This record gives sequence, structure tokens and C-alpha cells, in this order.
Amino acid sequence: MFRKILIANRGEIALRVIRACREMGIRSVIVHSEADRDSLPVRQADERICIGPGPSGKSYLNIPNIISAALISNAEAIHPGYGFLSENTSFAEICKDVNITFIGPSASVMSVMGDKVSAREAMIKAGLPTLPGTPVLRTLSEAQDAAREISFPLMLKAVAGGGGRGIRLINKPEEFDRVFTVAQNEVREAFRDDGIYLERYVAKARHVEIQVLVDNYGHGVHLGERNCSCQRRNQKVLEESPSPILPRELCEEMGQKAIRAVQEVGYRNAGTLEFLVDEQNRYYFMEMNTRLQVEHPVTELVTGIDLVKEQIRIAAGLPLQLKQEDIKFRGHAIEVRITAEDADADFRPQTGVVENYQVPGGPGVRVDSHLYSGYEIPPHYDSLLSKLIVWAETRNEAIARMQRALDEYEIEGLTTTIPFHKRLLSHEGFIQGDTYTRFIQEEATALGIG
Amino acid sequence: MFRKILIANRGEIALRVIRACREMGIRSVIVHSEADRDSLPVRQADERICIGPGPSGKSYLNIPNIISAALISNAEAIHPGYGFLSENTSFAEICKDVNITFIGPSASVMSVMGDKVSAREAMIKAGLPTLPGTPVLRTLSEAQDAAREISFPLMLKAVAGGGGRGIRLINKPEEFDRVFTVAQNEVREAFRDDGIYLERYVAKARHVEIQVLVDNYGHGVHLGERNCSCQRRNQKVLEESPSPILPRELCEEMGQKAIRAVQEVGYRNAGTLEFLVDEQNRYYFMEMNTRLQVEHPVTELVTGIDLVKEQIRIAAGLPLQLKQEDIKFRGHAIEVRITAEDADADFRPQTGVVENYQVPGGPGVRVDSHLYSGYEIPPHYDSLLSKLIVWAETRNEAIARMQRALDEYEIEGLTTTIPFHKRLLSHEGFIQGDTYTRFIQEEATALGIG
Repeated sequence: MFRKILIANRGEIALRVIRACREMGIRSVIVHSEADRDSLPVRQADERICIGPGPSGKSYLNIPNIISAALISNAEAIHPGYGFLSENTSFAEICKDVNITFIGPSASVMSVMGDKVSAREAMIKAGLPTLPGTPVLRTLSEAQDAAREISFPLMLKAVAGGGGRGIRLINKPEEFDRVFTVAQNEVREAFRDDGIYLERYVAKARHVEIQVLVDNYGHGVHLGERNCSCQRRNQKVLEESPSPILPRELCEEMGQKAIRAVQEVGYRNAGTLEFLVDEQNRYYFMEMNTRLQVEHPVTELVTGIDLVKEQIRIAAGLPLQLKQEDIKFRGHAIEVRITAEDADADFRPQTGVVENYQVPGGPGVRVDSHLYSGYEIPPHYDSLLSKLIVWAETRNEAIARMQRALDEYEIEGLTTTIPFHKRLLSHEGFIQGDTYTRFIQEEATALGIG
Repeated sequence: MFRKILIANRGEIALRVIRACREMGIRSVIVHSEADRDSLPVRQADERICIGPGPSGKSYLNIPNIISAALISNAEAIHPGYGFLSENTSFAEICKDVNITFIGPSASVMSVMGDKVSAREAMIKAGLPTLPGTPVLRTLSEAQDAAREISFPLMLKAVAGGGGRGIRLINKPEEFDRVFTVAQNEVREAFRDDGIYLERYVAKARHVEIQVLVDNYGHGVHLGERNCSCQRRNQKVLEESPSPILPRELCEEMGQKAIRAVQEVGYRNAGTLEFLVDEQNRYYFMEMNTRLQVEHPVTELVTGIDLVKEQIRIAAGLPLQLKQEDIKFRGHAIEVRITAEDADADFRPQTGVVENYQVPGGPGVRVDSHLYSGYEIPPHYDSLLSKLIVWAETRNEAIARMQRALDEYEIEGLTTTIPFHKRLLSHEGFIQGDTYTRFIQEEATALGIG
């Protein structure tokens, strides 16, 4: 097992990895920006190295500085968390070159599965159904032809996009040229890659994803599904497991197909296959996240399996101790992402100092957060403040528990999305489990954000 | 289901019951002393009624005031928590008289099972093994005869005792007269009942208890065992489930016998049968607690069952939905009781103001506590500040997780037993699971409290 791991991330996920390291008897080294000097993970890690100024490009995305920090501190492995360098193929390659284990899949499989178009091709070959779609398009004229073939409405997606960025719905042929051109400029700017592809649009699409774990010897399991249909601008805001309205057999079938497919392409470590499920319960592979996900705790709560520890064990070359038949699902888990945003003002980002901080407690409540009383939210990073996750025997009890926990949660000094989440959890459609990716947008008025 | 429940308790357990009520859609009324006006449960409850000054006798034990509060607020039921009036037969009777449901067993079965001597007789009849012991003794001369018959060393116990009070070990016949007389005076003072009985002493006794749940129709289940062998002066300081070294079949047998025995005496609601297990793994029924216990969360974490909600459902007359074969045990849970005591100064009680309060978070961590930053610990009550409970797949992982969580826990402004718990959890004997009721006393030097 590793003696020392460097964590190339910040915020709650850095703390999550530090906690796993500590419980495994592994020393943790955190790299941090100047803006994060006083953060909780920096305080909690065994060692800390400042790698640059606040803006991510100069610190958390600064590969040379991170690699130097790993070499200086004699870290044997790097955990990239999510975001930042977690899906950066060259970073994974450089780690390998300097003989440091990247805790994730190999650079080669990451490059196949991290690219939406090649991932799609690989998964079609491996037997997963996908939505009718196109190869990579770079010119308006080839896109026009392709769009006609798929028919409207359709989705336009950036090959290099992710986390909900670079995705657009186009309803009518008349809109196509304008949206395509704008989108292409935008993605070129954002991702330095103007590749775009089109996909059939599914009304009332449910976002259902399958968590997989594969060891270095190809032995793998799936850990069931997460339903992440509550999204705002293609960003997940609430996730749960199991999926509230899909039949168990369907999810089991998706799980089995997913694990077989990733084994076929030689995938290693933890990963997530995102599917879209239409109203007829037909499912289509969308993309794969080749890393730990924000919403991994809901899977941990229903399976009892610690995903971060499994990632570390797999990266260290240990064989997976889990067999598919040993994985038992219990109860229901829900996670909400509490962000520093003002939902009443179009989710405008907030900064400030946390003046009074009191977390909810008691049965079935888990808080993954880097907040503390007196913490100043730095302006450079995403707005996630806390993941509040609850577990209960049934979905209805989990909803009631989440409401109770949100009532108890005190974060004074800045506006958060806690009030929005309370409204979302009391929405009749949500309570029925009838959510879809455009649910929050369509129910904006009922949710008080219209 | 009840619309409103009055909580006749304070501190973390009051908060625990409020949380259950809130999740069940039941209004909560908290009664509180003047000293607890600013406490977290008083803040969190839906309604609050002050019932008297700080000292318990004038508030939390003041039956007329509590009953009046229940009548004034139209509460349909009273949850007594643990301690205070939770095992007070007349309180349960008065509740019945004024048509308020006491959330617990009936007064009649409580009076049988709450008295150690009659409980012992009832359980012998119901087929449970007990230690060789005596009936109630009131005079020194009858006690002397009885002691000779049992042989030394032996345990002297107050009939009305509880929570570790009124228990003494007598090693030699020469000590008997003096200890008996002192003890009798003491228990007369403390409990207004000088009844004493003697029991054979078991060296290296393990304290193992079985949680049961029985509905008003006699249907019941056991929820496995808790090992509470880590005690200091007969007070539990750490509890865990499952028991680390007992064979599974033995615990299962104890569970089955326990549930059958309580069903035979017509017991209702949640209860706990405490057993002593000797080094040959022979088990003996000791006493029953006819109420919720401090350490109930470890059972909740391994079974996934919410004991407080079950108590409330049973009291409301709902049939138990659980069948014995549905109860699945998963992983390992440990609870430590963090108290306001200075372990380095013979556990001297501490008071003060909580100046900075940061609870541990992340996977497998549960905190049941009424603390908050700025809370002033009132001097009148027991020293429990927080129950920190962890769950993990294995006992070793749970120990590592508890150490990690204790490292994260910040309670500034007063001395707590957190450092002591860290030492206890790193003690080789504890790690081996080889604990017994005198373990902490015998290992005092190794535990830094010698």
C-alpha cells in the first residue's frame, strides 16, 4: 500500500480523500493555492505545499508545480479528485513518466473514454445502446446535413465539454445555423477544441448513471445506479439512489451491461457511465466520467462501500475483494449540493465569510463539506459549499430526513441554496419521483426561481 | 399517528426525539428547565414550556409540571428519553390516568422488569440463565448468610440502582459487614429504597446486551447485540455492535431467547436485556432497561432501523412491520460518549462555554449532540456532551474511522474526554476486542489515567 498520497484538488473532495488516507494509515500531502491557505483540507492534511496563486490555471491546473510537489514530498500516488486535472490525459501520462501512480484509469483508456465521440464508438462496439447521433463535425455544411438526418429537436454537444457545459437544445431547423456558429465559437474559446456533435433530443429524459469499479486484473463490479435528473443548466443539483421510478430489473440490466462494456475496453479503477432514459424506459449511453464523481456518496450509503478507499486500493494494485453477488443495496440515499448562490437572483454566485456554522446531525445524516466558522469563501473556484447526504429505509423517509437536516443546517454570512433545496424537496413532482433533466427549468415558477 | 409529542428530557436525547418527530410530521413540545432555556433542543422543538429551575428535581423530575405541560399543549404522547422519568412507574401510570400515551412499556410490566429482583425472577421463569444470586436483603444478618452461600468474590447491588450506581465488588468475607452497611446507607439516600441483593462475581465479565422491539400485539424482534464492556465505575464509555469476540451463533441464541422471554412477560415497545458473559462464553441475564438506551445508535447503524421512530409507531398502536428474517446486520458500529470531564484529573466534571465547535464529517460518521458554538454547559446535569458514532464495513476500519473523527472533532473552551477515547481506541487489548467490565480500571496506567 502507498505510504503517501498527494491530493491535487481542494474543497470538500480534498477533505474526502484526506479522510480516506487517514483511515488507511496513508500520509496525505495537499497542494493548494495561495487563496486556499486557510482552508480546512490544508489544515487537516499531514503535509501542505503551496503551488501558486488563486486562479486555478496558476495552481490547481499547474501540472509542473503539482508534479514537483509530488516529487519533493516523495508522494507515491496522486489523487486528482473531480474537475481540475482528473480527466486530463497528459497529466496522467506525466505521472506515469515520473513513476507516480495516478489514481484513476490509464492515460490511454482515459483518452478513449474521456472523449465523448470515441467513448460512444467504443461503447457501441461493446454493446451499449446510444442515441442516434453524428461523428465529430467541424463545418457548418456537414453539420447541416447531419442535422437533417437526425431530425429536430436535437442536442448539440461539444466533444470537449463536460459538467453541463457546451450543450444546447435546438428545436427547429431555422435556429440551427445561428446556434451552431455561436456554440462552435464558444467551445473553441472554452475548451480549445471546436469539435461538435449532434444527438437526437429526448423529451423528459431521465439522467441515470451506473457506478463501476474495476481492478488492475480486469475484475469488476457495478454498484447500481444514481438518478441525477434534477439539473439546472445541465448541472446536477440533487442525486439519489436507487432511481425512484425505474424498474429494478432495468437498472440491474444497465449495471450488468455497463460493467461488461468497461471491462471490454480495458477500463481500470472507478468510473461512471451516464445514461439517458426516455419515457418508454429505453436507455442510451451518453458519456463516461473516468473519475470519482461529486455524487459518489449516495452509492456509498446504499452499498456500504467506500469508493475512495477502493480507488486507492485498486491503484495500489490490490485485487478487488468485492464480488457482484456480495453487493447488497439497502434503503435510499439523497444528496443535495449546497452552493454559494442566490437562487432568488438567478443563482448569482455569492462570496463572504461563514459567520456561524452549525451542521445537522443525528441518524442518517452525512455532511461532506470544507466549511467552518470563520471561513472566507475564495472567489476563484466553483460555488459548492457542502454536500448534504441522507440515508433512510425508504425514499419518503429520506426526503423527510433531508428536509429536517436542511432545517437544522445553519450557514450564516452568505446566501446559499438551502432554501431552494427545501422547495425542490417539497415539490409534488419530485416527491412522486417524476423528475427529468428539464424538470427544474419547467417547474421554475413552482420552485420559486421563475 | 400522534399529532403532537411532548419530550420530557434534555440534551442530545431530546434532540434525537425531536428529529424523529420532525421526520414523521409530528409536532414536538419540549419541556425544559430555566437552565436549559438556550439549549439546542429548546431551539429546535416546535413548542417549548419551561417547567422549573435548573435542578432536575424541580424540573425534569417534576411530574405535576410535566403532566400540566402536556395537558396545556395538547400533547397526545410523552417520550421520556433515558434517565429522569423514563423508568418511573408512577409517571407511566399518571400518564395513563390523564389519557396521554407514555412511549414505553405499560406501568405494570415496567414495575416488574424495572425492579432488578423481580425482573430476575421473571426472566428465570421465562428460561433465561442468571447468575447465582439472592432475593432482596434488608438486614445485615440475612445478608451474611446469603453471602456465605454464594461465596466470595461477590457483587452487591442496589435493587433500585441503575446506570452503574449502587454496585460494589466484595472480595473477602472480612470486608462484607462494612461494605454492606455503607452501601445500604448510600442507596437508601440515593434511591429511597435500601433493598440490596448479592450475585456471584465473574472475573473478566463481558457486558453484552440485546435490543428488542415488541408491538402492542405481542409481535417482536431482536436487533442483535451491543457490547458495552468498556466501562468506568460501571458507567459505559464506549459501545459497539456486533460484539467483537463472541461467536455469531452465541449472540443469535441470546437474541432469540431474549425476545421470547420478553414476549412471555407481555413486554411492549423498545427494551434492552443486559447480559454478563463469562470467559467460557456462558451468559447470564443481569437486568432489563425498559427504555431507549444511550447507545441505541450503534444498533441503528448496523441494522438500518430507526429505533425512536419504531418506539413512536409502536406506542401509537401500529403493528411492527419488521420480521426477524428481514433484519440484516451490516458492518460494524462504535459509539464513544464524549463527556465534559478531565480524564487526566480523575474525570473531574468540567463546565464552561463551548467556544469553537467543529464536528467531524464525511463517510460513516454520525454525531448526536446538543452542542453549538457559544453554548454554556449548565452545572446541573450529567456530563454527556456528544455521542460520536461511526460505521464501517469491518471493526478495524471502524476503529480507524473513529480515530480520524476524534482527530477532527474540535470542542474548545472546556476539557473533554476526546483525548482519553483516542488512547482507549489505540490500546492493543481494545483493538483485539478483548475488553471486559474492569478493563479500563485494570489498564488505567496504559490508558494514561492511572
